[in-house]
Amino acid sequence: MLYSKLFGKTVKAYPKDEIAVNAKLLLKAGFIDKLMAGSYTLLPLGRLVERKIEEIVRQEMNATGAQEVLMPLLHPKTIWNETGRWESAKEVMYQFAKDDKEYALSFTHEEIVMDLIRKHIAGRKDLPVKIYHFSTKFRDEPRAKSGLLRGREFIMKDLYSAHENKEDMMKYYAVVTEAYMKTFARLNLEVRKVEASGGVFTKEHTREFQVLAEGGEDTIYFCDQCDFAQNKEIFTGKEKDTCPKCQKGKIISAKAIEVGNIFPLGTYYAEKMNVLFADVQGNRKPVWLASYGIGITRLIATIAEVFHDDRGLIWPEAVAPFPIHLVGLDLKDETINSKVHNVYKVLEENNIDVLFDDRTEASAGEKFSDVDLIGIPYRLVVSKRTGEQIEFKKRNEKTTTLLDLSSIISKIKA
Amino acid sequence: MLYSKLFGKTVKAYPKDEIAVNAKLLLKAGFIDKLMAGSYTLLPLGRLVERKIEEIVRQEMNATGAQEVLMPLLHPKTIWNETGRWESAKEVMYQFAKDDKEYALSFTHEEIVMDLIRKHIAGRKDLPVKIYHFSTKFRDEPRAKSGLLRGREFIMKDLYSAHENKEDMMKYYAVVTEAYMKTFARLNLEVRKVEASGGVFTKEHTREFQVLAEGGEDTIYFCDQCDFAQNKEIFTGKEKDTCPKCQKGKIISAKAIEVGNIFPLGTYYAEKMNVLFADVQGNRKPVWLASYGIGITRLIATIAEVFHDDRGLIWPEAVAPFPIHLVGLDLKDETINSKVHNVYKVLEENNIDVLFDDRTEASAGEKFSDVDLIGIPYRLVVSKRTGEQIEFKKRNEKTTTLLDLSSIISKIKA
Repeated sequence: MLYSKLFGKTVKAYPKDEIAVNAKLLLKAGFIDKLMAGSYTLLPLGRLVERKIEEIVRQEMNATGAQEVLMPLLHPKTIWNETGRWESAKEVMYQFAKDDKEYALSFTHEEIVMDLIRKHIAGRKDLPVKIYHFSTKFRDEPRAKSGLLRGREFIMKDLYSAHENKEDMMKYYAVVTEAYMKTFARLNLEVRKVEASGGVFTKEHTREFQVLAEGGEDTIYFCDQCDFAQNKEIFTGKEKDTCPKCQKGKIISAKAIEVGNIFPLGTYYAEKMNVLFADVQGNRKPVWLASYGIGITRLIATIAEVFHDDRGLIWPEAVAPFPIHLVGLDLKDETINSKVHNVYKVLEENNIDVLFDDRTEASAGEKFSDVDLIGIPYRLVVSKRTGEQIEFKKRNEKTTTLLDLSSIISKIKA
Repeated sequence: MLYSKLFGKTVKAYPKDEIAVNAKLLLKAGFIDKLMAGSYTLLPLGRLVERKIEEIVRQEMNATGAQEVLMPLLHPKTIWNETGRWESAKEVMYQFAKDDKEYALSFTHEEIVMDLIRKHIAGRKDLPVKIYHFSTKFRDEPRAKSGLLRGREFIMKDLYSAHENKEDMMKYYAVVTEAYMKTFARLNLEVRKVEASGGVFTKEHTREFQVLAEGGEDTIYFCDQCDFAQNKEIFTGKEKDTCPKCQKGKIISAKAIEVGNIFPLGTYYAEKMNVLFADVQGNRKPVWLASYGIGITRLIATIAEVFHDDRGLIWPEAVAPFPIHLVGLDLKDETINSKVHNVYKVLEENNIDVLFDDRTEASAGEKFSDVDLIGIPYRLVVSKRTGEQIEFKKRNEKTTTLLDLSSIISKIKA
């Protein structure tokens, strides 16, 4: 991709009302644009990151045996009425009437998936069901001030599983927990499993996956020695207490971002909605439901909050929009110009995606500051000073080295 | 994928109110489920087809130099008011108020993309802009009776381009026309370019891409000798007239499905919304806008309408959910059972995706009728009668042949 042709370049000015670090950085670096409070367009760089995150999540979901579907976003009131959430979740849901029909926008999909499942199961042989989708969620957030961390509209991966009994549900619950930890590890995120309240989903405690980050909206209390961790909402102690679990460690508190959650919902939804299967004796029984979310656009924000310095973003390789940012300097010199275009061509021929800063007008200073702001893992420079070689630098290191193109290609492909 | 574990198997009963061929076939074969009139879930088989279509469209859009973004679905009234479409498109748009703010759901994105573009262009060097996304559209259809051909909610690829003058716009318009023809050819669809009315988008005539199909909602009039073709809405002649273009051919009329359209919208939107750039003299001028749509979920329906017989669907290889449907018969015989599981394993090891009917209870008749209904291009059978070989049959041919596994693998990979 030629930077001169990229839609969504780095910008100096961005909406004044943005206070979140992720929003400031992603806006300035040209990954997102703001449509209104809590609602952003993913620009080409942002969409590339989002698609890479989505593909990692897809691979890990498929590995658990889950199957990808796509459920609608516009829902009839009748289905939401079956569990009473049309009323109980009224504050967070967008609801409206058109031509005498009442609709809600998807703020989650439990009721919709249960309507689907009850049409497709008869007996035990049809269970378990494990289906997920990547889809848009809408939530009316009165204070949407955290950039992509908390939007009125955002992308979520939500997985739903239905089982014949609690044991089978808890077995898969453990499988998904492992898959989540693997997913977050692939994104370089250090995640804590935290006990929390079920909110509008269930009266039981549930499990959140929290990343420690100063920009986080949650506060968690956790042990400095064992895996005890609770969300502030349910934690009854205070900082510096002795850990109630291991009785050895001390409790620490920290700001954190919830990147995923897991709800073992049980038979509540199936009972309300008559999602029944015939057991071996032929008795009709409710299925056991669990739901599992990962905030896809929230992950973009989380990575921005965790991986940056005062000069800009620092993308982990697995989700960087491009592995390489190639900078051409002294481009009015025809020899240099043709040399750097050749480097670009050879890299592309080797199936290495490159963001190539081919601007002739911009200064070296401008180009280097854009490189640091955008945060692509490897910077290559071709200029009068690099001679027959190419300057190579990692975004998160200070040293530069001169290498030839073939060593660079092997380094990147390694 | 083991058919025994697939969510969304073939069904005998489907909603009685469905009259469209595509809806009946896709529901019966387990590709979709109906949430409400005009709104469907893509089940695993349907999502696989949709993702393959999406990837073909993505490749062809990228080849034109367009860049992928993702724009929001929930829009503020203020932006729609700038062109007056909040009022003029009221019938088709879902509009509602929440907490004193008024919103609309995306029925298209011209206004939203123009708001984005005006923030990101200054001079000529920022033009042209060519951006597209795959996103959900919502349209209030009073009569949603055509299955996935006309939904209240559907997936569309929409591309928008902004140019400094008409000439540049028309040049790219021709490039996208070619890309569209190539896209539809990759989907095995024979498409006619048809002149049509601009509807709520423009007062000018626009270009539609129409596939001849009995289930189509459009009627087109076209010449049997040249490329003249007009939508019924604007055609002023009648059937059997002499072609007004070549003066030789005869006009024929036929039912057709609009799978794509192209609107050279001009400066209208830019003038209303102040989407301006500085030309060489420094004068601020409005950009020339064009928009280009392809109905992704409508394409699934179109393929179903065009490619089927009385036994079921017949997917083109490029978009089939799996290339191979492997059927195991006589599975209570342990030798056969282990043989067919081995065939499945070897195919998967060769990176060939397989839908494997591993059910022990279903009869041969049931399995074969499911194969024909689902419509995967190649059927393989392993049974007592196939000995050391495997029976091979194409969905759209009658003859079966006995082949060994390695010849089958070369055939599929060819």
